[in-house]
Amino acid sequence: MQETEKNKKQLILESAARLFRDKGYAATSMRDLAQEVHLKASSLYNHIASKEDILREICLGTAEKFLLAMDEAEKLPIPPAGKIEHLLRFHVKIALQDPTSVTSFNDEWRHLREPFLNGFMTMRQDYERRFLLLLKQGMDTGELAHIEPRVALYTLFSAMRWLYDWFRPGKSLSAETVETAVMHLLMNGLFKKGS
Amino acid sequence: MQETEKNKKQLILESAARLFRDKGYAATSMRDLAQEVHLKASSLYNHIASKEDILREICLGTAEKFLLAMDEAEKLPIPPAGKIEHLLRFHVKIALQDPTSVTSFNDEWRHLREPFLNGFMTMRQDYERRFLLLLKQGMDTGELAHIEPRVALYTLFSAMRWLYDWFRPGKSLSAETVETAVMHLLMNGLFKKGS
Repeated sequence: MQETEKNKKQLILESAARLFRDKGYAATSMRDLAQEVHLKASSLYNHIASKEDILREICLGTAEKFLLAMDEAEKLPIPPAGKIEHLLRFHVKIALQDPTSVTSFNDEWRHLREPFLNGFMTMRQDYERRFLLLLKQGMDTGELAHIEPRVALYTLFSAMRWLYDWFRPGKSLSAETVETAVMHLLMNGLFKKGS
Repeated sequence: MQETEKNKKQLILESAARLFRDKGYAATSMRDLAQEVHLKASSLYNHIASKEDILREICLGTAEKFLLAMDEAEKLPIPPAGKIEHLLRFHVKIALQDPTSVTSFNDEWRHLREPFLNGFMTMRQDYERRFLLLLKQGMDTGELAHIEPRVALYTLFSAMRWLYDWFRPGKSLSAETVETAVMHLLMNGLFKKGS
């Protein structure tokens, strides 16, 4: 029973993320969502209190996943470049496995209400600050090329946006092919020439 | 007189591109545009016939600039990697110099009417096809690493989106710093390890 409840909620969150992506958060109503998951509006409210609740769960839930990956990466007993590789691989994998949630996370977080908006931005800044620190450490140890770390950070994150925005793995391009090529391009890009 | 006319038109195109970016193409009216450039609506029509006209000039004009850069690159008497570098540098420079037009080009082209929509998509496909060919040539000559060329193409183009979407050169990050770092990351990324 608890398991069913959890699955139902997961289904609602995923459908909502898809609606937010296709129609935008502002234009999506609880009625649209009820229709999408084949529930009466009154039953939908047994699972979730409001549209704001859903957005909060998606955005804060995704932010938490990124921060957990950061905790994990920081603890790895390897040099900074390996930690960065671990994180970039996480970005690619989450884009290939759960693109709709991460699209809401990327595009719709502006609609969060306070204090959640502030909480979300703090989590995001924390993630970026720690990622930046890993980049700087990798440059300081001589492992990575000395390039402006913020430009590196923004370029790396931006480079993966097409995976969230429109790419879906298929026959023509498999998830493995994409992961291999993106990881080569980005990691190699960070290294020094000839290293 | 002709010079003034040209400047006025350029100003109108730039203001329109900014409005399209901030409000979206659909929500921007000729009245909004007249207000933005301090003209009466009736005078605005002396310079430009419609909102569709403006979008067409921005999108096809920008597509033409990219294709001219491609013609130029292909003619350079250097190996494929150098041609790719020439093109990526063009992407970065146009983003830093004319971000608003290129944002319309990236985001609002879907609103073009036929036959311009089709013409635009053909130009874009032509550009991507020729870029892909340069990547394949660079891989065939052994200059570049063998990674899936389409993934490389999408990742390279995506990597520069932040320059169009929100970055503006300033005291904290100059255009030169950004160009140097982005070019290192992307070009080095394409090379083989240890090359």
